[in-house]
Amino acid sequence: MVVLGCLQSIPSPIPTKESPSSSSSSPSSWSRSLGTRREAIMFGTCFVSSFFSFTPAFPSAIAQQEQDQFQQDEERVVHLFQDTSPSVVFIKDLEIVKSPTSSSNESMLNDNENTKVEGTGSGFIWDKFGHIVTNYHVVAKLATDTSGLQRCKVYLVDAKGNSFSREAKIIGYDPAYDLAVLKVDIEGNELKPVVLGTSRDIRVGQSCFAIGNPYGYENTLTTGVVSGLGREIPSPNGKAIRGAIQTDAAINSGNSGGPLINSYGHVIGVNTATFTRKGTGVSSGVNFAIPIDTVVRTVPYLIVYGTPYSNRY
Amino acid sequence: MVVLGCLQSIPSPIPTKESPSSSSSSPSSWSRSLGTRREAIMFGTCFVSSFFSFTPAFPSAIAQQEQDQFQQDEERVVHLFQDTSPSVVFIKDLEIVKSPTSSSNESMLNDNENTKVEGTGSGFIWDKFGHIVTNYHVVAKLATDTSGLQRCKVYLVDAKGNSFSREAKIIGYDPAYDLAVLKVDIEGNELKPVVLGTSRDIRVGQSCFAIGNPYGYENTLTTGVVSGLGREIPSPNGKAIRGAIQTDAAINSGNSGGPLINSYGHVIGVNTATFTRKGTGVSSGVNFAIPIDTVVRTVPYLIVYGTPYSNRY
Amino acid sequence: MVVLGCLQSIPSPIPTKESPSSSSSSPSSWSRSLGTRREAIMFGTCFVSSFFSFTPAFPSAIAQQEQDQFQQDEERVVHLFQDTSPSVVFIKDLEIVKSPTSSSNESMLNDNENTKVEGTGSGFIWDKFGHIVTNYHVVAKLATDTSGLQRCKVYLVDAKGNSFSREAKIIGYDPAYDLAVLKVDIEGNELKPVVLGTSRDIRVGQSCFAIGNPYGYENTLTTGVVSGLGREIPSPNGKAIRGAIQTDAAINSGNSGGPLINSYGHVIGVNTATFTRKGTGVSSGVNFAIPIDTVVRTVPYLIVYGTPYSNRY
Repeated sequence: MVVLGCLQSIPSPIPTKESPSSSSSSPSSWSRSLGTRREAIMFGTCFVSSFFSFTPAFPSAIAQQEQDQFQQDEERVVHLFQDTSPSVVFIKDLEIVKSPTSSSNESMLNDNENTKVEGTGSGFIWDKFGHIVTNYHVVAKLATDTSGLQRCKVYLVDAKGNSFSREAKIIGYDPAYDLAVLKVDIEGNELKPVVLGTSRDIRVGQSCFAIGNPYGYENTLTTGVVSGLGREIPSPNGKAIRGAIQTDAAINSGNSGGPLINSYGHVIGVNTATFTRKGTGVSSGVNFAIPIDTVVRTVPYLIVYGTPYSNRY
Repeated sequence: MVVLGCLQSIPSPIPTKESPSSSSSSPSSWSRSLGTRREAIMFGTCFVSSFFSFTPAFPSAIAQQEQDQFQQDEERVVHLFQDTSPSVVFIKDLEIVKSPTSSSNESMLNDNENTKVEGTGSGFIWDKFGHIVTNYHVVAKLATDTSGLQRCKVYLVDAKGNSFSREAKIIGYDPAYDLAVLKVDIEGNELKPVVLGTSRDIRVGQSCFAIGNPYGYENTLTTGVVSGLGREIPSPNGKAIRGAIQTDAAINSGNSGGPLINSYGHVIGVNTATFTRKGTGVSSGVNFAIPIDTVVRTVPYLIVYGTPYSNRY
Repeated sequence: MVVLGCLQSIPSPIPTKESPSSSSSSPSSWSRSLGTRREAIMFGTCFVSSFFSFTPAFPSAIAQQEQDQFQQDEERVVHLFQDTSPSVVFIKDLEIVKSPTSSSNESMLNDNENTKVEGTGSGFIWDKFGHIVTNYHVVAKLATDTSGLQRCKVYLVDAKGNSFSREAKIIGYDPAYDLAVLKVDIEGNELKPVVLGTSRDIRVGQSCFAIGNPYGYENTLTTGVVSGLGREIPSPNGKAIRGAIQTDAAINSGNSGGPLINSYGHVIGVNTATFTRKGTGVSSGVNFAIPIDTVVRTVPYLIVYGTPYSNRY
């Protein structure tokens, strides 16, 4: 009844944003569209204020002076997110459902009616050459595709904060560790790779931070502590991934492949699974990440050979 | 399978407190009822202590001296709760199931057998005149009632900490933003309105605090960080509410309409929805609040006109 | 649909560790088994590093110097876990499914094919004599066993960090407070009992820490705040346990009977229930612990008389 669920997000019937890159890059346009209305309503507020002498208090200058230790800790988390989130990407698995009228694959992926979303996940920028690390299970359909209809689109930001999206190719994958490497054409966009930490000296109780796209909500930050170490979680090939990091930071469907980060902003794991009711992908507070040391050992072989070390001949 | 669930609590078959106001106002009576028993048991403990020479250690005076930074941060959260929770109310939707024998509406609502609880939610005190802000979906049955059998009861505390409950009237509502304003007769009780913040300068990673009544458990505090900004969530009229705040603070069924608070104790949003399995209302760690700036623009019109600005003619 | 679920973990079809004590006591053996491989792969990493000039940055010496307040708070939690986790035990309910070929009960419990796991839970070391406190519902089958086939095995560590397991006997239990006391033969192993706090001066908003074995993942730490006080939760005998502590620290199936700890490392409650969908045991963020003052009043009678104070004649 309760199973260890992988965290690829399957499209659901609820309304989600159609274009993640545009929505994250244009909060200002949203603010502007409400500008006129806001002014008009401010007038309304004034009218009401004179009508009711006891209106709710608004934040005073004193509040700005309360910048003590408590807020400094918050600042640390805010900056940690700002520093690390540009290295996290949003991955959409697409299936071509109509015969393309255009001969270009790239144009097919421009959010038109020729594709449907098969699932979503997260990933992170490995290096400046456009290599993206994610879970194997996020791109398993593309990896095992024989129809030629599977595609994978990555939404990312460059080092200057510009959002863009690219179709990605699979460079290599290892189901035994639930890892895959994608590559996107960066075309002059400078990327901001993650800073890698080590999972060797992690201790239960230290703070950790997950960034990813649960249910397609991009660049979501969730926080918690390291709950346990040396866990075993099932891998897509049916064997066990050992040494997994357990955390109570909320990890939900769609978080798969995103980074687990320590308080220095270093990646210590790849968010992979939650222990939950079958099929829901709803975080239980018992969540797992593949330790980064395993990733560091595996990814170079995936980049160079396309397969894990054990299969390199 | 997984849907964005609104967070009104529907009565469940588990045992809940019948009268929230009395239980919160009389913890002392519960302590007293155990007084005699406690003394008797203390004797028992002493007896056992002499029997076993190695009893568990009790907190020493040294513990009281450990008041360092770590505990100061805790103090901040404790005081934040104490300062803000008197502004949070518990809302019960009632339906009259029998013909009242009394002619007074008020007497009908005194927890007698004439009413059944249709759902519960949260709200917060907007001003000293007894205006309460909550989600529209918490009071939708009353708002659209044509039978005359729907009622709404609010449990609140005054500025001196005295608990009381009142039947509330709906002053105005806006399904497009999932907001409603209730009014209770304060009859000389001085209320403590919330302190409003702004949602303009919120940043991902800052701490936030939700106060509400999940599953009817009054004045529940849950904590987390701001997980994302500029989200879209569905409104009761089927359109999207834009600019929603995402948080990993646990928000469950019954939290709807309660405030999301920053570390200064200022309200930055109205807790409204969680992303979860349909029908459960169980928090997934992906939870949403309507930004307070939207509330500040909308509520004055609801108070004065009973409808949003766009419908004021 | 949504019920208050007790948190004993029922075995699920997912792969779990067969022998918790060996896995926790031998992380080094696991490291060793990967030793050779690791060296080989380090070579691989170097090779790739020379191939790609822009490899991801590794943690620098500067990171080690960032030991500021933020990290000091983390250190506190890390040490709190290290100090308190040796007092937390893992409890397995076993049922004998075959006629034992051996005449010794102890040998039957050595993880052989003669037993199947009926459920798992948590507990904590009460004193140096081997008394273990847990929830009654964790060991209810053994407590009410008439077949003679129920067994209970406890996995624990001694004060020197050595893991061992023992069959436990039930010394006493009180369904009204969902408490039970077990006893294990300590045979020269020195135990580390918990440090008891008091639940009298707990305040909403203070930090709290749950240690237990959700879904069998041993020695899991989850963190949160005290969400509410004076709650009522149903007890196994159908009555209400009053004064329960509510927390948003994740508490899942298998956490039952484990300690809830304050930031001084003192036990303030026994994790007992979560408010969730029936049958899932998945944490909702609305979780409950029996207050330690109730435990302190009850346990001595269970140790001496085997029954609560009210039944002592």
